[in-house]
Amino acid sequence: MAERKADEMFKEFKEHSVADFFKKNKQMLGYSSLGRALVTVVHEYMTNSLDACEEAGILPDIAITISKVNENRYYVKVADNGPGIPKNYVGKVFGKILAGTKFHRNMQQRGQQGIGAAGCTLFSQVTTGRPVTITSITANSAYKCNVGIDTVNNKPVTTNVEDIPLSEQHGTCVEGEFAEVKYDTGEHSAYEYIRRTALSNPHVKVTFTDPSGKETVFLRAVETIPARPRISKLHPLGLTVNDLIEMAHTSAERKLSSFMTENFARFSPAKVKEIAEIAKDVDIDMQPSKLAWDDAEKLIAAFKMVKWIAPESDNVVPIGKERIEYAVKNILDPEYMSVVERKPKVFRGGIPFIVEAAVSFGGGSGRKVSGDESAGNILRFANRVPLLFDTGNCAITTAVKDVQWKRYGIDMDNQPVSVLVNVSSVYIPYSGVGKEAIAQEEEIIEEIKLAVMDAARGVQRYISGKQQINYDKSRYRTVMKYTSQLAKDLSALTGVPQDKIQEDLERIVAKHYPKVEALKEDKEAEQ
Amino acid sequence: MAERKADEMFKEFKEHSVADFFKKNKQMLGYSSLGRALVTVVHEYMTNSLDACEEAGILPDIAITISKVNENRYYVKVADNGPGIPKNYVGKVFGKILAGTKFHRNMQQRGQQGIGAAGCTLFSQVTTGRPVTITSITANSAYKCNVGIDTVNNKPVTTNVEDIPLSEQHGTCVEGEFAEVKYDTGEHSAYEYIRRTALSNPHVKVTFTDPSGKETVFLRAVETIPARPRISKLHPLGLTVNDLIEMAHTSAERKLSSFMTENFARFSPAKVKEIAEIAKDVDIDMQPSKLAWDDAEKLIAAFKMVKWIAPESDNVVPIGKERIEYAVKNILDPEYMSVVERKPKVFRGGIPFIVEAAVSFGGGSGRKVSGDESAGNILRFANRVPLLFDTGNCAITTAVKDVQWKRYGIDMDNQPVSVLVNVSSVYIPYSGVGKEAIAQEEEIIEEIKLAVMDAARGVQRYISGKQQINYDKSRYRTVMKYTSQLAKDLSALTGVPQDKIQEDLERIVAKHYPKVEALKEDKEAEQ
Repeated sequence: MAERKADEMFKEFKEHSVADFFKKNKQMLGYSSLGRALVTVVHEYMTNSLDACEEAGILPDIAITISKVNENRYYVKVADNGPGIPKNYVGKVFGKILAGTKFHRNMQQRGQQGIGAAGCTLFSQVTTGRPVTITSITANSAYKCNVGIDTVNNKPVTTNVEDIPLSEQHGTCVEGEFAEVKYDTGEHSAYEYIRRTALSNPHVKVTFTDPSGKETVFLRAVETIPARPRISKLHPLGLTVNDLIEMAHTSAERKLSSFMTENFARFSPAKVKEIAEIAKDVDIDMQPSKLAWDDAEKLIAAFKMVKWIAPESDNVVPIGKERIEYAVKNILDPEYMSVVERKPKVFRGGIPFIVEAAVSFGGGSGRKVSGDESAGNILRFANRVPLLFDTGNCAITTAVKDVQWKRYGIDMDNQPVSVLVNVSSVYIPYSGVGKEAIAQEEEIIEEIKLAVMDAARGVQRYISGKQQINYDKSRYRTVMKYTSQLAKDLSALTGVPQDKIQEDLERIVAKHYPKVEALKEDKEAEQ
Repeated sequence: MAERKADEMFKEFKEHSVADFFKKNKQMLGYSSLGRALVTVVHEYMTNSLDACEEAGILPDIAITISKVNENRYYVKVADNGPGIPKNYVGKVFGKILAGTKFHRNMQQRGQQGIGAAGCTLFSQVTTGRPVTITSITANSAYKCNVGIDTVNNKPVTTNVEDIPLSEQHGTCVEGEFAEVKYDTGEHSAYEYIRRTALSNPHVKVTFTDPSGKETVFLRAVETIPARPRISKLHPLGLTVNDLIEMAHTSAERKLSSFMTENFARFSPAKVKEIAEIAKDVDIDMQPSKLAWDDAEKLIAAFKMVKWIAPESDNVVPIGKERIEYAVKNILDPEYMSVVERKPKVFRGGIPFIVEAAVSFGGGSGRKVSGDESAGNILRFANRVPLLFDTGNCAITTAVKDVQWKRYGIDMDNQPVSVLVNVSSVYIPYSGVGKEAIAQEEEIIEEIKLAVMDAARGVQRYISGKQQINYDKSRYRTVMKYTSQLAKDLSALTGVPQDKIQEDLERIVAKHYPKVEALKEDKEAEQ
């Protein structure tokens, strides 16, 4: 076989847009099976609605309709009472991948990538050939239009723009048709996604109409809007050398010193002095735009040698213990629950995050296995967004599985237990573009474990009291069954009467299981 | 709290480059922990070298060096004897995300995205501030240069370009420094990655120098280059409506009929006639560029109603049964193995793929658990590339775990067993951008299961013969221990002499375990 030359091979060299990439690899955005694809659409639109309402200071009221068009083809409509989308941005919001208000801001939000909504448009387009339809009313404009996507150039194609009457009822409604999808029920369904969203967002009202026409209303459990997360400055300990350089090079400050106090949290003039003393070689009065890698490296090293006040955490807004209690009661209605909100922690040196965990027992907790049998389940959330897929790949799953449940008297395989975990942060390190799992960061896993163990301790007494009785009873029955069989066999073997052996064996059993007598009485009382 | 208006909120709206996106989310490319990040670098460079050699028809000879620069900072050098990279493309290959020769061609290759090498440059740059250095010699040019990446615009920054003497020794060498990495040993190490690459590519010679200076040479097990995969036409059953429209709209053919026979596999003029009879409304003589969604939908529906010859599969090149046997012998040196190459199958209607599976027992198979104990392991490959991470998320893992191993007399928890699976296809549906797991496509999972069960059947007789003896021996010992203890207790209970009871019990045991007698002899002979 003759060798081929590089020049010939590189005739095939081409550049591609990110839209083309995700068109070919749509499974990476969550469009990987019929059922999951439909949940992904609902997830993306709902996430955007909640973020918009929260940032605008509006109590969200969302109406979701899914109806069947054809085999594996559905119509989805999500309407909110949010602030609306200005007409000149609507194309890019729904028709350009990697564009949005969220990516670059150091602020806790559900979405953070600028991929989701445009991903839905892409998916609608490649499966049905149709654009999505947007109707939006802001404080000063009202319009309707179609948005598609030019995948070769990753550019929006906005058509049929039409003004509609302005009204007080601001909000955005997005409608689209999607093929290669299917409405499922069960643990991985749109219904379950919406139910869990209501669980972690008790201030939200959601009205859901499923393909059979059945309407479910998830009412608000609380009437107040959660605190609006602040946009925060980066903490010096969370910075990489590269961050420092990029920020310095685009800074308008005239000196490195003022650049640092202006841009980073906890950076007082006194701290500048401390840093300057450690990183002696670095000219603290230089123009930030001239900062070179070596000097930046010395500064970052110096940051790590100084004592800092912990990062501000009012930029991280958890659900809150009371709200979780309300919501769990409202939706799972368990016999017993224990909710834990941990203090803010940091990962990667300076990115603050907060973990909340709840363990609930009985009622609607756990998942039905078969008939009356229940088993434990894990309800995962990141910034209050339910995570339904990629379970095995998620830091929350790893942490919950790492807990030695038996220590807390909990049997995750056989008891109706739900473990809810919500991780809140300005930056959630998702393991994939589809944002269905939190990456396996050691510090996050550890903190989740501590939260879950704390909550488990809270239900331990309740469950162990309740379960010890059942457990002892069943053990007693097994042992007794065994003795009578054995007595029978041994009687045949030895010629000694069965009754006699049975009596002797029961005496031995009683010695080993001192609680048996009590249980026997219990058993007699039952009969 | 006053409501905020949309116009105010959208002042923050921005567009981002794909390089900026992955700079912020580098864990999605595989840069998610110190150890994994280093393996990702080796993986990306090695994959590119192997693809280039294969396409050029060269037997690959690759030298990899990893040395430690500092705590969590390493130097990596990968040099190959490939065709080299033309000077005018080197910037884009290493400094632009989503550019390359592979993305758009319907051809089986290891890489398929145009992300990997530029991702390494990005990672080097954000962790060390340095570009990577490329030295390349093609048939008619030889140069050295540095490549960095302008992440804001996703554009290469090529510097210090310097011509070097042209030589017969064509090839490419890439060197770079990477921080936030660590050289690990064990199951998730660069060493293991290279070892497994040698396993699935027995025609490759790799020389690896680890940070301690130790050199390992993985020699070729075969001296012939694998067949070069052909670029294939798409099969009509693997097309989506969107594919059909996009191809039609960019086609230079004058009629729909000739567009179809030209572009798709198995599309004879007779088939055009058949299709035209089913999709009566569609004008088969129309200009392809005028094809509308409705008509395309009708055509795709018609494609599904016609009988087709199976997709060509000479565009899918598996490792081959013999080569796997050579390689497994060479690297695992097992006591016994069984290798299965399945026939080509299709997923999503028309994308051909081939599954190969091997089950090996003993020797270097399995993984060491502690001391002498071994357990089974899974060696996953996609287009011969080892997959070391995201295990839980992969179709191969799901399939292997689904197999009822006990049926084949194999105990994956306690035996030295390796299960090797390689999936080959023009398009591997990876679940994430980091390409560490195959998405959970039903058809792929099923086919892997069949291959693995077939291979398991092949080792069943060997293992069951060998293991039954050990198993029976241990069961016999347990039972005998139980009878003598019981005899003692019962003697005390009943007054019957212990010997007598022991004898009786042994008789019962012998009745239940007919092989005991044979084993007893065996035992006596051992003593």
